[in-house]
Amino acid sequence: MKEGVQITQLQKLTLLKLGGSAITVKERPFTPDKRVITRLAEEIKRADVSPLILVHGGGSFGHPVAKQYQIDEGYKDSSQIMGFSKTHQAMTMLNRFVVDSLIHHDIPAIAVPPSSCITTKSGRIESFEERPLIKMLEIGFLPVLYGDAVLDWDAGFRILSGDQIVSYLAISLDAGRIIIGLDVDGLYTADPKTNSSARLIPYLTPTELKKLQQKVEEAKVTDVTGGMLGKINELIPAVEHGIHVMIVNATKPNNIYRALKGQTVVGTIIERA
Amino acid sequence: MKEGVQITQLQKLTLLKLGGSAITVKERPFTPDKRVITRLAEEIKRADVSPLILVHGGGSFGHPVAKQYQIDEGYKDSSQIMGFSKTHQAMTMLNRFVVDSLIHHDIPAIAVPPSSCITTKSGRIESFEERPLIKMLEIGFLPVLYGDAVLDWDAGFRILSGDQIVSYLAISLDAGRIIIGLDVDGLYTADPKTNSSARLIPYLTPTELKKLQQKVEEAKVTDVTGGMLGKINELIPAVEHGIHVMIVNATKPNNIYRALKGQTVVGTIIERA
Repeated sequence: MKEGVQITQLQKLTLLKLGGSAITVKERPFTPDKRVITRLAEEIKRADVSPLILVHGGGSFGHPVAKQYQIDEGYKDSSQIMGFSKTHQAMTMLNRFVVDSLIHHDIPAIAVPPSSCITTKSGRIESFEERPLIKMLEIGFLPVLYGDAVLDWDAGFRILSGDQIVSYLAISLDAGRIIIGLDVDGLYTADPKTNSSARLIPYLTPTELKKLQQKVEEAKVTDVTGGMLGKINELIPAVEHGIHVMIVNATKPNNIYRALKGQTVVGTIIERA
Repeated sequence: MKEGVQITQLQKLTLLKLGGSAITVKERPFTPDKRVITRLAEEIKRADVSPLILVHGGGSFGHPVAKQYQIDEGYKDSSQIMGFSKTHQAMTMLNRFVVDSLIHHDIPAIAVPPSSCITTKSGRIESFEERPLIKMLEIGFLPVLYGDAVLDWDAGFRILSGDQIVSYLAISLDAGRIIIGLDVDGLYTADPKTNSSARLIPYLTPTELKKLQQKVEEAKVTDVTGGMLGKINELIPAVEHGIHVMIVNATKPNNIYRALKGQTVVGTIIERA
């Protein structure tokens, strides 16, 4: 992609993913965590990293509606069509809070809804119109994408995760690094929310990650939401491409700022050995 | 474009343009005319026309911010970058009112922001990612686009009018007709708001339109906002392509319903002779 080269000649792109769990109130549908969003906007402004793309998750906005209408199972009957519209509209609502907060902090953010520039095939990105995005980065905008309901050439529609978008863009635009902000400190040997013996893994290679996954599979520890390993799985192609991935806790003040600045942060780094 | 053929085999596409003046309160910035928007959503639901694309203008949302930051003059200095973000965010605010109202009336509307799928070159559409749009029409969604601040390969950014989008899509997707809803009854021999002798022109060919423009130019009657003739100019390529254009007053109840149903409405029809 010839346009991408111009950007990377200046400085490698940073992709920042903010998990839905970090920026919404999980227990209450359609409730943004305004305090966290405002603080993160301030940290992004202060870090002043460019070029930067922000991708956020759906949290308590996208998931309830998408689940109700079974959007991720594809188009089965016409009652789902309104569900797709409602899922997307819920995500644009959360996106507005994020973009408004960034603009309020004098960051030239622009919402880029995946449903209007991406199509998938059996849930995997099939087409991604990057020309507006590339021109935005060139001028100095901060494009803001998100997990979204998108059109799918096989299934009619599907849910496209923010993690898949991040990994795809990181490779396509030859990014330098991916920072993932969650509501936990990083990747643990077990679920830190339920298991007190869980240990944070500070450093991991894709090979070690695959071994860990095998162990989890053997133990038949499944997570209906896809879980942490599922999310990280999406990032393996980017890691194997040579892109550094760092997982930090975005709900703790200054973590995203420090990560963006390249400073030391408690978290998990995933890198090619 | 091979995907477009499938749609037109079923039924020719209708493009409905709602002028910003019809759906916002001109005197008050950032004020949607909720009563008109709600009524139009009900009329669109009742008419039940498919496939349909809706494009709306900016009215009191887009224009004040775009003008303040001189977005349409292109990228001249960095202070405009925040202005671009604010212009686009203002337009998404108006778009939300429109899409929310359509969804509320059980119409599966999806916002398609032009800034995320269109780029221009010197203000003219250069790239338009239509794949998501085509798939939306296939499934039965109502895509909703709007006049927007977009990225431009020559000028950095520009304002892309809803009229240019309508004309481009009508030709590209081989539409059957374009319905333009404004706050006046159609095209007049003079400005009906200031000139009581103004006569409504019920029927017009592109040749007659060009003669009318010449007359206006000779009379040195200029309109800083582009005016009615400027807007209609955008539609000439579509008319010459064989697409029927109908201008009606969207602020009068049932006009948009009747136009969508193919019934007689007071207005102006522009057709190839």
